[in-house]
Amino acid sequence: MKGRLTFRNATEEDLAIIVEMLADDELGRQRERIEHPIPSTYMKAFQAIKADSNNELIVACCGEKVSGVAQITFTPYLTYQGGWRATIEGVRTSSSVRGKGIGTALIKWGINRAKERGCHLVQLTTNRKRKDALRFYEHLGFKATHEGLKLNLN
Amino acid sequence: MKGRLTFRNATEEDLAIIVEMLADDELGRQRERIEHPIPSTYMKAFQAIKADSNNELIVACCGEKVSGVAQITFTPYLTYQGGWRATIEGVRTSSSVRGKGIGTALIKWGINRAKERGCHLVQLTTNRKRKDALRFYEHLGFKATHEGLKLNLN
Repeated sequence: MKGRLTFRNATEEDLAIIVEMLADDELGRQRERIEHPIPSTYMKAFQAIKADSNNELIVACCGEKVSGVAQITFTPYLTYQGGWRATIEGVRTSSSVRGKGIGTALIKWGINRAKERGCHLVQLTTNRKRKDALRFYEHLGFKATHEGLKLNLN
Repeated sequence: MKGRLTFRNATEEDLAIIVEMLADDELGRQRERIEHPIPSTYMKAFQAIKADSNNELIVACCGEKVSGVAQITFTPYLTYQGGWRATIEGVRTSSSVRGKGIGTALIKWGINRAKERGCHLVQLTTNRKRKDALRFYEHLGFKATHEGLKLNLN
């Protein structure tokens, strides 16, 4: 792993490498579209994320190289006496640096960011097909107390 | 059930009855605080929800009476080629009208709202302790494909 690991908000220039990471696993391959330049739908979504103060797209960089990505959404709820929650989604690390602790560092960074934003809870869902992911998150202290349900509208 | 069932955005005046609904089950009782007037943290969260165009707090009304509540969060993601998702949380119906299909109508309303907002997916998590909820959502077409993980920060 070359260089120090740092975290920052993603920029437009990071989009192509982020989409490559999203596409680089069994589930992502079926969902994403790798073209050059990248399809404009990604750019539109990026602009919407950037414009929303309750959404942050974070990249982990080894030196200059973008090696991990995660999106954090901060949401105010009435439940828990009006508590804010952080939801983490779209977590990926580059396959070239896998097993080097970047995913762990990225989630820990997200947890700290959630604390900074005054959240009482961090939540995420993980597809049961991603066998290692559940262990990974439980190791970080998450409890699998909930069923995660999805309804496809397409 | 008196009167027609309608749906609208919650107002400040609905807050006390919404908090009562949130507190009126085994899990909610441990989390919420019923006082008159209601604790200011609920009002603060309500204002934050109201100020955020990607959050909607919806009430179901039987005639004039608020009988159900749900929060919908619309989130732009890079995944799925830059798709928007709707997340439904904090779904409750008044115990006095339970079993009359208000919960079903409320979720169906949320699904339609998600379509209107251009979402490709509706997602939610439900605590495994709420035994009937999983069946309820599966009946509405949701698939329990994911583990729902939570990390408490308090």
